[in-house]
Amino acid sequence: MQVELISHTPEPERLVAAAARLCYSPRGAGQLLAAMSREEVDKLLRLLISRGHDSPLEHITFTFAIEGVSRVLTHQLVRHRMASYSQKSQRYVNEDGFEFIIPPSIAAVPAALARYQECMKVLQRAYHELQELVPREDARYLLPNACETKLVCTFNARSLFNFFRLRCCRRAQWEIRELALKMREEVRKVAPLIFSYAGPSCETEGVCYEGSASCGRAAVVRRRVREEM
Amino acid sequence: MQVELISHTPEPERLVAAAARLCYSPRGAGQLLAAMSREEVDKLLRLLISRGHDSPLEHITFTFAIEGVSRVLTHQLVRHRMASYSQKSQRYVNEDGFEFIIPPSIAAVPAALARYQECMKVLQRAYHELQELVPREDARYLLPNACETKLVCTFNARSLFNFFRLRCCRRAQWEIRELALKMREEVRKVAPLIFSYAGPSCETEGVCYEGSASCGRAAVVRRRVREEM
Amino acid sequence: MQVELISHTPEPERLVAAAARLCYSPRGAGQLLAAMSREEVDKLLRLLISRGHDSPLEHITFTFAIEGVSRVLTHQLVRHRMASYSQKSQRYVNEDGFEFIIPPSIAAVPAALARYQECMKVLQRAYHELQELVPREDARYLLPNACETKLVCTFNARSLFNFFRLRCCRRAQWEIRELALKMREEVRKVAPLIFSYAGPSCETEGVCYEGSASCGRAAVVRRRVREEM
Amino acid sequence: MQVELISHTPEPERLVAAAARLCYSPRGAGQLLAAMSREEVDKLLRLLISRGHDSPLEHITFTFAIEGVSRVLTHQLVRHRMASYSQKSQRYVNEDGFEFIIPPSIAAVPAALARYQECMKVLQRAYHELQELVPREDARYLLPNACETKLVCTFNARSLFNFFRLRCCRRAQWEIRELALKMREEVRKVAPLIFSYAGPSCETEGVCYEGSASCGRAAVVRRRVREEM
Repeated sequence: MQVELISHTPEPERLVAAAARLCYSPRGAGQLLAAMSREEVDKLLRLLISRGHDSPLEHITFTFAIEGVSRVLTHQLVRHRMASYSQKSQRYVNEDGFEFIIPPSIAAVPAALARYQECMKVLQRAYHELQELVPREDARYLLPNACETKLVCTFNARSLFNFFRLRCCRRAQWEIRELALKMREEVRKVAPLIFSYAGPSCETEGVCYEGSASCGRAAVVRRRVREEM
Repeated sequence: MQVELISHTPEPERLVAAAARLCYSPRGAGQLLAAMSREEVDKLLRLLISRGHDSPLEHITFTFAIEGVSRVLTHQLVRHRMASYSQKSQRYVNEDGFEFIIPPSIAAVPAALARYQECMKVLQRAYHELQELVPREDARYLLPNACETKLVCTFNARSLFNFFRLRCCRRAQWEIRELALKMREEVRKVAPLIFSYAGPSCETEGVCYEGSASCGRAAVVRRRVREEM
Repeated sequence: MQVELISHTPEPERLVAAAARLCYSPRGAGQLLAAMSREEVDKLLRLLISRGHDSPLEHITFTFAIEGVSRVLTHQLVRHRMASYSQKSQRYVNEDGFEFIIPPSIAAVPAALARYQECMKVLQRAYHELQELVPREDARYLLPNACETKLVCTFNARSLFNFFRLRCCRRAQWEIRELALKMREEVRKVAPLIFSYAGPSCETEGVCYEGSASCGRAAVVRRRVREEM
Repeated sequence: MQVELISHTPEPERLVAAAARLCYSPRGAGQLLAAMSREEVDKLLRLLISRGHDSPLEHITFTFAIEGVSRVLTHQLVRHRMASYSQKSQRYVNEDGFEFIIPPSIAAVPAALARYQECMKVLQRAYHELQELVPREDARYLLPNACETKLVCTFNARSLFNFFRLRCCRRAQWEIRELALKMREEVRKVAPLIFSYAGPSCETEGVCYEGSASCGRAAVVRRRVREEM
């Protein structure tokens, strides 16, 4: 899996702070952008994020180039609707001799791995033959979930907070969790203070909401309790 | 303020439960809708909501007719982007003799009330005159925030959870809080179990994230703590 | 493929018309809902839709139970972000002896069909064996795109207009096009006037924007021309 | 009105082109970003935009600082839900001696202007007094729509296309139209090819959908015609 942060809003932390500050100030955003010191920026960001006043985080966006992932992963990923995606099309791109992802649990069991690789070979051959007989977009019906894909996606920081909360959790599947951890590593390089607060609830709130499915890393609590009416 | 629930998804709790159940079942949604008992529905809803698995709540929508509110309120309301709005237009509707909202804090102070009502009269007269001289859409520049408006809005239940969390809080302004409480009362009539869990964090989580601005109803905690990197 | 409209906003056309009317009327929505005649409703809907004033269409939602479709289809479907989805999980549901979709182009070519079915058998056996050796969520990496899935989804009418414009087009893949046509058939039963206007641009505007990729059903034009600056 | 583009995705046109190209290429986005020539970028952008394949436009975002606008304008602006806003709060910022917007139609009629300015003085005095007697958030109920506000907003390019289509139109109110024209001028400096295609339908499609309300700049057609079922 390759994850590269190929573009992002310049000076992201300063922009979030200036936008947030504007709401409570008679001064304009241009002025605030120029005038706020690094200390003021940091202090304001800490206040915002620790109170969950997240809307100014939407002003900054991050674009990732992702390669070497499966369509198991992308079918999960694109369910995050507060983001933009451009993905390699199996309708138009020839998948002859496709690459495929091998889950670590399969790689670790020789019998499983042999069976898995054998299947992939069967599918590669069959895809190659089917492509001669039917349209490419139909031949791909036999491509496996494991088939390698690539995409570009853009998230704003608020949406990333939600993504990291759900997908850096140990309950997420290993592949999307690996992606989330790598994406978080990337954005921490350019907005370290903001994303120091981003992660699953065990890290950021010290509690877990997953009930009996919890990994046990933090105390289990319920997200909501029923109010007595 | 009048708040009427003029339409909603029929049998909302059953629909949410069937959609949620589908994810973990080999059976189809039609079957599940018919087959689940009230007990199964209730048990599943409690599990979902207490763990924060909120996406099935999006399948049910609620449409409200709202009248007798100010444009202070609607400018705040339409910031909730996960909802649909149709509002009376000040560009096209004649606001001659407009109604206006009186905040309780003003109603309670005779000197303030007298000053306020006098201003409203000045504005009503001026609007009437200006309408003769300039387009209606420009005459309205002098209409006050207090000016009465009406609208129809549609939210799904997940978006309502967010709305009630923020706007039933005592930190919200009194008018939108009154609206939120009335809307909650309405939806509790048709989806009582689901919305018994909806409200500000002091009610649903037993804690407050508002820091020094808290009303003190629940213990103040921080929404996010900084992970040591 | 089974497509069932399992829930929808009651009296959808009346609700859209009342919400739209409210914007230009001093009367409230409750009154308008009750007072508008069928003729007024129809006339207003025709005006709105033919001018592209689509926002009131958001007030009405439609929930579909869909079965017997492939994950080719659902990976395309969930890219429509203005909708809500609950889908059968391959992480949690045992796919032993999975059903699979056969594209018509494959069914029509005996050599292709034989090859395809043989592959599916290989995969069914391998999935069964892998499940014993590794977690189910990883065994599914070899499941094919063709694997049958089911889901519940909810769209509002405005989002359906966009969906039908793109997916009832002959350029869409056959499977999602079949879904879109069936969904349109279902909603036309309950909101016939509104959805009589919904479809690809060849049907609703009499033109095609697909350039050299057009099927030729309508004259090709460009969606946008460059303004001289 | 001051409109400043205070931040944007670097090299926006190249990023859109690389993301779009990825969908049809076996190569990755990082490679494509580096390898595409300016001619390839331009050719691809022209193709995408003229066919309405707009999704890659979402990858680039633009942040504006806006000052000297009324709350008439912002109440309209924030109805564009595919954008992010941070606005000066009338709850928290003291509006003593508030600035106000004067519509050109009022400025042009001395009798109207005199009346308007007189009202503003009345309101400034009353607001000042009310603030002593009631909370600031309630004193603001008598502030006029004309009251000056400022905000920061972020749009992606796809959302800007929609915004410019609706708000650069002569049917939009003069103030938000002035804003839209200035925003378009700003983004044309940094993504000239992309935004050369952005504007109302009279400019970009050569037709108007506004029916009897059209300004007459382009031939009136209906957006949708009813399909015979």
